[in-house]
Formats: sequence, C-alpha cells, structure tokens
Amino acid sequence: MPNLASARAALPLDLRSVHIQDSYWNRYVELIRTTVIPYQWEALNDRVPDAEPSHAIRNFRIAAGLEEGEFGGFFFQDTDLYKWLEAVGYSLAGHPDADLEKVADEAIELIAGAQLDDGYVNTYFTVAKPGDRWTNLLDCHEMYSAGHLIEGAVAYYHGTGKMRFLDVARRLADHIDERFGPNPGQLRGYDGHQELELALVKLYEATGERRYLELASFQIEERGQEPNYLVAEWEKRGRVSPWNPGAVQKSVNMAYHQAHKPVREQEVAIGHAVRAVYMYTAMADLALHKGDAGLLAACKRLWSNMTNKQMYVNGSIGSTHHGEAFTFDYDLPNDTNYSETCASIGLIFFARRMLQLEPKGEYADVMERALYNTVTAGIAGDGKHYFYVNPMEVWPAASEGNPGKHHVKAVRQKWYGCACCPPNVARLLSSLGHYIYTANEDTLYAHLYIGSEATHSLGGKQVTLSQKSGLPWAGEAGFTVAAIGAVGTVGAVGTVGTVGAVQGGADAEAATFTLALRVPSWSKATSFTLNGQPVQPEVTDGYARLTREWRVGDTFAISLDMEPRRVYSHSQLRANAGRVALQRGPLVYAFEETDNGAPLAALSLPRASALRPVPSDWRSDIVLLEMDGIRLSGAEDSLYSGEPPTATPQKLVAIPYTLWGNRKPGEMSVWIRETP
Amino acid sequence: MPNLASARAALPLDLRSVHIQDSYWNRYVELIRTTVIPYQWEALNDRVPDAEPSHAIRNFRIAAGLEEGEFGGFFFQDTDLYKWLEAVGYSLAGHPDADLEKVADEAIELIAGAQLDDGYVNTYFTVAKPGDRWTNLLDCHEMYSAGHLIEGAVAYYHGTGKMRFLDVARRLADHIDERFGPNPGQLRGYDGHQELELALVKLYEATGERRYLELASFQIEERGQEPNYLVAEWEKRGRVSPWNPGAVQKSVNMAYHQAHKPVREQEVAIGHAVRAVYMYTAMADLALHKGDAGLLAACKRLWSNMTNKQMYVNGSIGSTHHGEAFTFDYDLPNDTNYSETCASIGLIFFARRMLQLEPKGEYADVMERALYNTVTAGIAGDGKHYFYVNPMEVWPAASEGNPGKHHVKAVRQKWYGCACCPPNVARLLSSLGHYIYTANEDTLYAHLYIGSEATHSLGGKQVTLSQKSGLPWAGEAGFTVAAIGAVGTVGAVGTVGTVGAVQGGADAEAATFTLALRVPSWSKATSFTLNGQPVQPEVTDGYARLTREWRVGDTFAISLDMEPRRVYSHSQLRANAGRVALQRGPLVYAFEETDNGAPLAALSLPRASALRPVPSDWRSDIVLLEMDGIRLSGAEDSLYSGEPPTATPQKLVAIPYTLWGNRKPGEMSVWIRETP
Repeated sequence: MPNLASARAALPLDLRSVHIQDSYWNRYVELIRTTVIPYQWEALNDRVPDAEPSHAIRNFRIAAGLEEGEFGGFFFQDTDLYKWLEAVGYSLAGHPDADLEKVADEAIELIAGAQLDDGYVNTYFTVAKPGDRWTNLLDCHEMYSAGHLIEGAVAYYHGTGKMRFLDVARRLADHIDERFGPNPGQLRGYDGHQELELALVKLYEATGERRYLELASFQIEERGQEPNYLVAEWEKRGRVSPWNPGAVQKSVNMAYHQAHKPVREQEVAIGHAVRAVYMYTAMADLALHKGDAGLLAACKRLWSNMTNKQMYVNGSIGSTHHGEAFTFDYDLPNDTNYSETCASIGLIFFARRMLQLEPKGEYADVMERALYNTVTAGIAGDGKHYFYVNPMEVWPAASEGNPGKHHVKAVRQKWYGCACCPPNVARLLSSLGHYIYTANEDTLYAHLYIGSEATHSLGGKQVTLSQKSGLPWAGEAGFTVAAIGAVGTVGAVGTVGTVGAVQGGADAEAATFTLALRVPSWSKATSFTLNGQPVQPEVTDGYARLTREWRVGDTFAISLDMEPRRVYSHSQLRANAGRVALQRGPLVYAFEETDNGAPLAALSLPRASALRPVPSDWRSDIVLLEMDGIRLSGAEDSLYSGEPPTATPQKLVAIPYTLWGNRKPGEMSVWIRETP
Repeated sequence: MPNLASARAALPLDLRSVHIQDSYWNRYVELIRTTVIPYQWEALNDRVPDAEPSHAIRNFRIAAGLEEGEFGGFFFQDTDLYKWLEAVGYSLAGHPDADLEKVADEAIELIAGAQLDDGYVNTYFTVAKPGDRWTNLLDCHEMYSAGHLIEGAVAYYHGTGKMRFLDVARRLADHIDERFGPNPGQLRGYDGHQELELALVKLYEATGERRYLELASFQIEERGQEPNYLVAEWEKRGRVSPWNPGAVQKSVNMAYHQAHKPVREQEVAIGHAVRAVYMYTAMADLALHKGDAGLLAACKRLWSNMTNKQMYVNGSIGSTHHGEAFTFDYDLPNDTNYSETCASIGLIFFARRMLQLEPKGEYADVMERALYNTVTAGIAGDGKHYFYVNPMEVWPAASEGNPGKHHVKAVRQKWYGCACCPPNVARLLSSLGHYIYTANEDTLYAHLYIGSEATHSLGGKQVTLSQKSGLPWAGEAGFTVAAIGAVGTVGAVGTVGTVGAVQGGADAEAATFTLALRVPSWSKATSFTLNGQPVQPEVTDGYARLTREWRVGDTFAISLDMEPRRVYSHSQLRANAGRVALQRGPLVYAFEETDNGAPLAALSLPRASALRPVPSDWRSDIVLLEMDGIRLSGAEDSLYSGEPPTATPQKLVAIPYTLWGNRKPGEMSVWIRETP
C-alpha cells in the first residue's frame, strides 16, 4: 500500500488471505456464488422470464459493433455488468472457477470492444448520444459508470491477477484525468452521482499511480465550490433534464447531490443517501491517504450526524423516497422510509474506511447493524428476489392503495429496470472478507465475528488465525493461532485442517502482536478466556486488546451477551415514542402477520414480559423470540366510538428482521407499542 | 319547489327566513361579512401584498375587452370570482348592504361582458385558447367553472332578487344544454371535475326549467359508461395533458374522476375527494327530484363507505395528497392526510341532501362534525389565512424537511394560486342558514343547535321559531314559538324582540305541527322540557319529535350531554391503535405544543384520568380540557439504547381542534397514546 499517511492505519486484508467458513455466512456466500452470480448473468442477458430487461449485455454488443439496435435502459445501465464483474472478481479470489472466469473474460472483451480509441467507455453515449459526452454530469451518471468499471476492474485484477480489465480501466481513468482537473483547458467537473472518487482511490491503491488519487481529491474538493459547475452546466443547456424531457426546471437542488457547499463545510447528511455515503467513503479514503485532518474531521461530523440522528435501527438510511434521500435529524418515519439496500452497503463502505482511520467500536457497530439486518434483508432466501426499500413497517394494503407508500413493497421483486441493489448485494457479500478484519504490522482487529481463517504479517511473522463464531445465534467466538511462519510461507487458503494438526506442537514458532477483538456495544456482559482461562484484557475504544507472544495453538475467546434486549429510541424520534424494538446479538427482530395476526398495530408488549429465545418451525437454524403480549380489540361496527378497546393476552413471536417477507406476505413491524 | 318526488321531503328554508343570532357562530358569520368578503375582493383584484395573485378580475377584464393582456392562473380561475359572488349573494340575503351589492353588480357586468353571443363564458378559453372550447373536459374544468357561475347566479338571485346574473347563467346553461346531451349531433360529455351537475339542479330549483334537471341527470348517468367519453377524448388529443405539457401519458386514471364505472355501480368513495362529494351531492339531488330509489341506494352505499371507513374524526376526507384523494378502507394516516377544507364543505353539501331525502341523525352528525371541526379550522381567527389541508398531526420541522409532508402546513396561508378553499369557506359560512333546518309542511327539523330565528309554513300557518343555543360550550338549547300567523304575515327578519312581547298572550294563535330536534349521537344523556316541564318525546332516527298544537310562547328545550369524552377508532384503523381522541359536545380536541411542550408524541393519557373542562387564558369564550397525563423521557445521548424511558406526570391541555394553529406555531396532534 503506497504512500500511506500513517503506518499505524489498519487496512483490510487481501481477499485471498481471508477464507470464510461460517455456518451462518456460508449460506449467503454460497448463495451469491452458486445462485446470484449465475442468475444475474441471466438477467444481464435479458433471459429472466417476467422480469424487467437489463439491456446491459445487449448495449455493449451494440456499442462494440457486434449487434444492431438501440440503447436500452437507464444512462447507467452499464454498471449492472460492472458490478457483476466486481462480484465475480471477489468470488474468484476465494473460489476459483474456470467456467465463470471464462464467461467473465468474454464480458470483459465486450467492454474492451466498446472502449473507444481515446479510452472512453459508456454504451449510452456511444450508442445513443455520441456528441454529448461529458456535457451533463449532473444527470447522466457518466463518471458514476466509469467508477463502477474501475471498481470491477480492480476486483477482477485482485481476484484473477489478470490485467486486461485493469488496462481498460486505466485507459478510461487516464481519459478522464486528461479531460478534468484544475489545469488550463481542463473542465472543473465532477459527477452528479458520486462513485468515481472512491473508485479512483482503489485504482491508485492497485496501481500506485498517484494521479488517480489526485484526481479523486480534485473532484472531492471541487464539489460544491462556487461557481457551481453542475449549476453552470445546467444553465448552459437551458435548465432542462433528460429525466423529465420537455420541461424547463425552475431550480436544481444541489443538496440532493451533496454539491450545495464544499464537502469540508457540510455539517449534516443530506440528499440522495447512496450518493452521500459513496462520497463520504471517498472522503475517508482521502483523509487516510493524504493524512488530511480536516477531511477526517468532516467525515467524523457527517458520520456522527448520520448514525446518531438519521439512521434506522436496522442500519438503514434515507427517510424518504422523494429523492431516495435523508430528510433531517430524528425524522425516521417507519412506514414511508426508503432505507435503500444500496445505501446501507455504502454505509458499510464508509464504516470500514473509518475503521481504517481509527479502529473504534462505533464504526464496527454500525457496520454490523447494516450488514446483519439491512443488506441481508435485501435478498430473498432464493437469491433471486430483492428489496430496494427496507421498510420498518409494512401494511400490504397500503403499499397497494396509498400512493405515498407505493415504494414500500411487501414482497421482494425479481429484477428492476434500475437494478442497482441486486449486484450491489452480490459484490458486498462476495467481498465479505474485506470487512471482518483490518490490520497493521502489529495489530489485527477483528470487527465481525464470522468464522474464517485469516493470514497476515504480524510482528514480523506470517500469522494465520482461525476464527470460530456462533453468531448471530450464539455468543461464543474464538480465535486460534493456526500457524506462524516466516513472512510468505504459510496462510494458503484452505489449510485449516493441516495447520490444526501442528497445534500446540513443540516446534511452534512465536510472534508478538496484538489481537484486538471488538466488544459490540450491544453486549452488556462480555467475558474472555485465553487458552481456556478467564482473562480480562484492556478494553479501549470498543476493542479488547491482548498483546503477547502468541504461539500456535493459543486461543483467545470472547463470550458475548446474547440476552434478548429491548431497544428504545431517542426522545426526539417521534415515530418510535412509546414503542420498543427487540434485538438479540446483532440481529434486530420484527413482528410478522403470519406469526401474530393482523393488524399488528393492535399489539403491544408489556415492559415486564420476558423475551424468550425459541426455535423456529420454519427454519431449524434460527432463533425466534417469543413473549407474552396484548392485543387490543376495539369496536367493529363504527369507525369512531366511545367504546374503549379491550385488552386480550396473546403470545407474540418475533423473527429476525433480515428474514422477514420470506413466508406468506402480510404485515410487518419492527417497533411495537410498549405498555407499562 | 317544483316537481318534488315526495311532498314529505324536508327542504332547507329560504335564507331570508333564517336569521342567525348565536354567540358562537355570529363571530364566523360576521367575520365572513366584514372581513373575508372584502379581503377576498382585494385578493380577486390582486391587491393582497405578498400573496399569490388571483388574476381573476383581470382575466375577466381582458375577456370583456376592457384590458389588454394574457390570461393568468389556472383554467378554473374564474371560479374564484363566482364563489365570491355566491358568498355575497348569501350575505346580502341576511344582511343587505348597498355598497357591497354595487361592487358585486359591477363584477356581474364584467362577467356579462365576457359572455359570448352564444352564451359561452370562460376567460381561459376566450382569452388563451378560443379554438379549443369543449375539447378537453377531462383536464380543463370548463363545466366545473360553468357550474360555479350558475351557483353564484342562483345565490345572487335569491339574495337580491336581481335577474341579471341569473340570465347570464341561463344563457350559459342553455349553451351547454344545446351542445351536450343524448341527441344526435350532441356530445355525450361530462366534466372531469364534477360541479355543473349540482349547479344545474339549483338552476332548475330556481327557475323551474326541467331541461336543467335533465341535463344534470344525463351527465350523472353518462359518467363512467363505456365507451368512456373522457378516455376517448384523451386518446383523440394524443394522450397528452396540459397539466404536464410535453409528456405523453401512459394511462389515465378514471377512478380519480369517479368515471371508472357508472355512478350507480360505484361501491366505494374513490378518487379526488372534492369531485366525489360534489358528484354524490348531485346524485342525491337527482334521487330527490326524480324519486329515484336506485340513485338513493347508490348514495347511501357511498355515504356509508365514506363516513364509516374513510373519514377522519374531524369530519374530513381524503387520506392522501396524491390526487387529493381517498385511498381505501381504514387507511387514515394522521400525518400525511389531505383532508381538504373544500372536501368537508362538499361532504356537508352531500349530508344536507341526504337529510332532505331522509332526516336521519347520522347525516346531521357528520354534517356537524365537518362544520364544527374542519370547515371552521380552515379559516384563521383573522379571516385572512386559510388551511387547505387539515392535518391530524403536525410536526412543523417535518412539514419543512420531509417532502412527503410538504402539503401539511403548520400555519394558515394567505392566499393560494389555486384558491379553492377560501371562497368555499366563505360561501358555506355565509349560507349557514341553509344547514340548520329542513322542513316540510308539517315538520320542522332542527339539525344544528345554532341560535336563530326561523320562519316557515307549518300546519297551514306561518310559524316563527326562535332558537337559543349554548353550543358548542354548553349543552342547553331551546326553541320558542315566537309568532304564528297566516301564511305570509309574520316572520320578518329581526322581529324577535317584538314578537317576544306577545309571548303567552291571550291572542296567540295556534298551529299543529311536529318539531323534530336532533339528538346528536355523541349525547349519551339527553333530556327535554316542554314549557319548563320534563317531557319524553319519541326519539326515532336520531330526532326527538314532538307533535302538538303549538302556541306562541311554547318552549321546547333540549339538554345535551357535555361531558368530555374519549373517542376510539375501529380496530382496523391502524394509525390510531392504542390511541384516543377527545371530544366535548360537537368539538374534537387537539393537543398543541404551545400548551404541552414538544415532542407531543412523548405524551400519553392514562385511561383513568378525568377530563376537566377549564377556561382559557387565551380566549375567554372557549372551553379547554385539562387532564393528568404522562410524558416519557428517553435517552438523550444516543439514537437507540437499552435505557427505557421514564414516565413523568404532566398536566395536559387540549384545545378545540378548530382553533389550532392560531397561536405560536408548533406541533399539534389530535390522537394521543392511551396508557392503561
């Protein structure tokens, strides 16, 4: 990693050095690998029956001159393919697959075939508007698309070692770098939808070419400066937008694009949520690579506002579907929220960047919250249906019959015309190994308790650690030093069994480093053992740190508090006043009609009721919560009456939120009224 | 009243025969007369500073050739003037005013001057689109505007006896009658916004010209028939709408216009709420005048659906601002409702028509609910600020910061570009005398307890009754026979004092008739006296009926139950589960931040807490409710925590909903959590 501002920064491990073996997460990782990636390939080729067509492959074939036809889909349709290739790159890193790689290589050739001589790639402009390149950064996602190409190329390069796609990406980045920048003759532009910035940082990390970092920095710093580039561009074209052809716009909302003021001056999370978190991610990247305390301060301010005032309990963001956007502090309505899956993915990106800068539990807590609850909720058990919106409360009749709730779906959808979320879920889950650990040369931080084997250079040795975890169902997790060797000698993927055989052997080498285990803020009673003996490590910033001379076979274990617990909201969060949500471990729970009957609004939970973990008839591997609740039954013959409702005891059942909507469609609610 | 299907039908009294003298309502009636009518005249002339211009008078001046210029405002801008003239007509009926009449006469001359030779009047088409008359009934409100002209003309005729405006109206109606109808060469059209239908019935009632009734009937019956006229017209013009220029529409929503099926087949209230109730009003008119049992059944079905499943507790309708429309049964969200003032006015129109058909308490209950709570809430104490939307719950920060709530205003507005509600409030309140009583030849029904003197022919005599009422603050109301004479001899306005002098005198004449006093459904303990002695009249269909030989000085009094009471919602009404609203007499109460602090959502009301009527420091004439409640105070330092909120006793104060938003802007809520 070149030019890091701080050698103490803890970075994620190479994906090939983290091998996930976890009873909970394998299900998702395998689902992505065996179902989602093949399914999305079919979708990209418009071969999923009854789903909206993607047009993506066809657009590239037309742009590459292999097929006649017109461009189909949105301006940013190319990104469906790029995100798929990114997921494929991650998947191949952990699980080589020659057939898949062959398909991907062909797709990359298609992209290369669509690249123009000057490095430009974008099938919309190439096919439909060849003369309009770089004239509408506000609306047309041109740099956004380039960013996804670059992210895909970097992932594919890391996963396969092949340069072909990375070369395409470099030529495109070089083209942009030539066209945009602070120098005379260059345009001072940046995209309406942030994404290129974080991608350029990745390209810099992969290639060491500092121009890419500086271009990202330029775009971040230029954003929101006066005169506003995006506004000037909009005025120049006559105040029209291709999103609403024919209409002259009265105004253009720069806050939606986080371009209303320079990023360093932004105080609150505002505008389109995905754009925001993609931008914050790049800001944190730049703070790290440039050692920029001012940018770090801005990141911390925005992080704090977003997670302490504008985030749902499931780690989702975006209080309104109008602009898929943030609204304002403590405005977190449960029945009209947007909470896009992609936004939580971006939030995870941002959280990890903050962890790289400062390993503090608050970042990992949010990362875990979003990952276990929103990201996995975004995908159905079959891997072929997706939520874009992750509501906190659903009344299916209202989703159908009230136009203000049409965005709130009661069942996951097959494939959308704007298919941002499905490939985003795929790329996040196939790169899960990037989020479990970060490390520097003497400390390995475990942020997530996900069974895995990780190899990294620590204390001058190549150390392989084996993690076992019972989460999210059981609170025990343990780390065993599986192997220690000279740097570069051990840690090949899949060697757990082999290495285990030498555990505790007399020849075991030793290495001195710190193992820092995250203590989730939700664990109110946490204990530790070292080689089976109770130990009380120092806990700072949410991490329990044990520094010692580690030997092969040493085991550091953590026991987390898995008591089901009640969660209450800040008193300014009006939508949840008098209500309670339930969590157990990292999982937020929800009530579904199929377990509890309708209307769910009639249910309440007395404060004294015990929350009992119970098994499920539906899926043997999950833990439900059962409790004694109350149902109010009111007048049935008149709309309003003086007849007070009667309270009847009822057993209530809550299911992990992430699994909601996988059975019979019906009502769902995370928050339930609490009665004294 | 010509050609009534049933001589037993009870009709409203002539406005000149009802003289309101009421400590509560005089305030509103005088506000309309002395402030609102003059203020709206200024608004019509674009002379209200900082308010959106009306353009109305200027449009007429341009159409009449008195001024050069371009049309301004909406297609239906003319109706601002028509509704104002209607209010003036009503006001002049009760309160002659030569100056006002002169101004109105001049405005009428302006309208007459804008009328074309063939009878057509509409400044939009005359000025802006002369060739497009009657080509877009769906979007352009052409008949709607004609309807308001006719309503204005009928009111002005009744109020002043002058024929000039009525002649303009007849010529316009004749023009439409020639152009539209079932005969060869005629168009089978009807308007996208219902209104002409009920106006034509009024014109028929005023003139006895049955053609107008038949034209109304034709339009009502033709509506929603296949092939659909409005759809065909839309297809013919290329599926475009002037509301969204340049865009080709994929579909057109006939349910929004209540034209998705024939009106007799419609089962539920659907679409734009104002259009719906205007249509139902005309349907009830036609059921009456044509003795049509089928139409009556449809009216009852729609009434029942609307008031038993889709009405807010303040008598407002329209659950969503998307299309200002109904949604579906029991979908009554409190924080995003539309509840337009105009829609409640239309609901009152419909209720009175139903009372004419069948004097049943359920209709008057709803009429009273809408009148006392929503209509009067629509206008500020100063008469110059208006609510279009009447929310059940307001958080001002959300109205500003959450786009889904931009329609919910925390303070009344000066004047809107689409100024439908202000003149609608004016015409309703200036014709209040039409809603207090209905009568036929032997029964007088008192629907509302509003102090007034009413004269009508009963039992073959001209009877003047004097009503005194303490509502809405006190529950005592009394009816005294003030005069009895030969038909046509007594009952002049303002003779109460004079007639009172002969009360009980030996020369008092007698008349045999039934006095039917409504027993509001909210009065759980109602008692009656006749000349001071307890009496127990028969109560049927919500009316206490006393039939006897009445003599001058006889007094029939009712005592209503004014205990404050709690109101609960139907168990399917999810938004109100676990919540309670408060009423006292006809008034719904609300909690305001200014009395109770924010956030209101943190408040709850134990079921056992007494509701205490108390005076107000703010206005000496009103009754507040005071009670012992609870405030929850939760964690202040984190968004979500395990720390349960603590409950602190707090005295709560509720104010009549109709008066909310007249003090310092802040939160408001009608429904409050109820704790056991």
